[in-house]
Amino acid sequence: MMEPVERVTRHFQEELDQLKTRLLEMGGMAEEHVRLAVQGLVERDRALIDSVLAGDEPLNRMHMEIDSRCFTLLALYQPMAADLRTVIAAVKINADLERVGDLAVNIAEASRRYVAHPPVKKLIDIPLMAGIAQHMLRDALDAFVRRDLDLAQHVLDEDDRLDALKTQIFRELLTHMLQDPATIEPSLDLILVSRHLERIGDHATNIAEDVIFIVSARDVRHHGVQTRP
Amino acid sequence: MMEPVERVTRHFQEELDQLKTRLLEMGGMAEEHVRLAVQGLVERDRALIDSVLAGDEPLNRMHMEIDSRCFTLLALYQPMAADLRTVIAAVKINADLERVGDLAVNIAEASRRYVAHPPVKKLIDIPLMAGIAQHMLRDALDAFVRRDLDLAQHVLDEDDRLDALKTQIFRELLTHMLQDPATIEPSLDLILVSRHLERIGDHATNIAEDVIFIVSARDVRHHGVQTRP
Repeated sequence: MMEPVERVTRHFQEELDQLKTRLLEMGGMAEEHVRLAVQGLVERDRALIDSVLAGDEPLNRMHMEIDSRCFTLLALYQPMAADLRTVIAAVKINADLERVGDLAVNIAEASRRYVAHPPVKKLIDIPLMAGIAQHMLRDALDAFVRRDLDLAQHVLDEDDRLDALKTQIFRELLTHMLQDPATIEPSLDLILVSRHLERIGDHATNIAEDVIFIVSARDVRHHGVQTRP
Repeated sequence: MMEPVERVTRHFQEELDQLKTRLLEMGGMAEEHVRLAVQGLVERDRALIDSVLAGDEPLNRMHMEIDSRCFTLLALYQPMAADLRTVIAAVKINADLERVGDLAVNIAEASRRYVAHPPVKKLIDIPLMAGIAQHMLRDALDAFVRRDLDLAQHVLDEDDRLDALKTQIFRELLTHMLQDPATIEPSLDLILVSRHLERIGDHATNIAEDVIFIVSARDVRHHGVQTRP
């Protein structure tokens, strides 16, 4: 027979595994919303765009459920050290994923305005940015679940590519706007979309930094400052 | 003589009070960065703008210190119920305040680009937005420290004013851009500044929602969904 302490430990690990599974599911859902919003923009598909605008509820419900799981884990098991850091990281990651869902809605809003105008240009860099941002998000969550430092570091490195693409998109659209004032309004929406995608990359970066912190107890969030006791 | 349990409780409350004080200080610092960045923009003061760009370090250090205090409180005292919710809220508020600091830097970056061009217009609505956003942030933190539900609700209400101003700024600048292509590039930076200010209001809103949750154990974050057990 197991000792009571072992049993509690086993239950805690089971519930922690469930929590991680739910976070992965939430991440998958948030990522799918981003993918659909950008697909709606590229294919000028209003029905798809509207489905993202109307489909925020399941993500919000999952956000509250996961928050509640974290509280329960902390209150029931009072985890220590690495386990405590993992649950606190889950609270933060959950908040990051909810914002990603909000950003998918923001992208859909800009897309709805954009498709009301003639297209400014063939969209190539924006789907590229979206692909990178989605991939960063997936890798960051995988890194969290597998406690994979290398993968977390890879996410941090990818952020520079996103930033370079954002700058490139901005310059190209500025040229269009200067040449033809009719493109100003739709170009603004494309610039906003690229900023939203950049912020999705920022959230993936936040998650990767949390992973590095919980695995190595090393704080990489503010380079050059080392004060964590 | 006090019982050991009382002594532990007293120490916990003392440390919780210190944590709240540090959060208020961090909020004050973040708010000051926003104020200086916008003042630099309005007065076209490059030295002021540069001071915000260079001055992120103390906020980052405070962010890590507060995070570390939260971990210590959870690990040492294993608080329950309302106390647990308060510490978890502090972790989230700390993350919100750090982002506000980042947004102050983003505002300073856009301001530095803006002041390299002739002014597009007299800036009236942007300082107005900044004032509202700063006030929301201060009220949200006061609401957290005083557990003041009415003040938290007031913060949520203020968000609509910020949103209306952002839309107004956008429309006005769009008119300028359409009339005079030379204003396109600086106008884009003003639009970005207004978005950054809107996001500062979003962070104040997040904090206010956390306050309502910890005080009333009611989740107002996703209106119309009530699943918290």
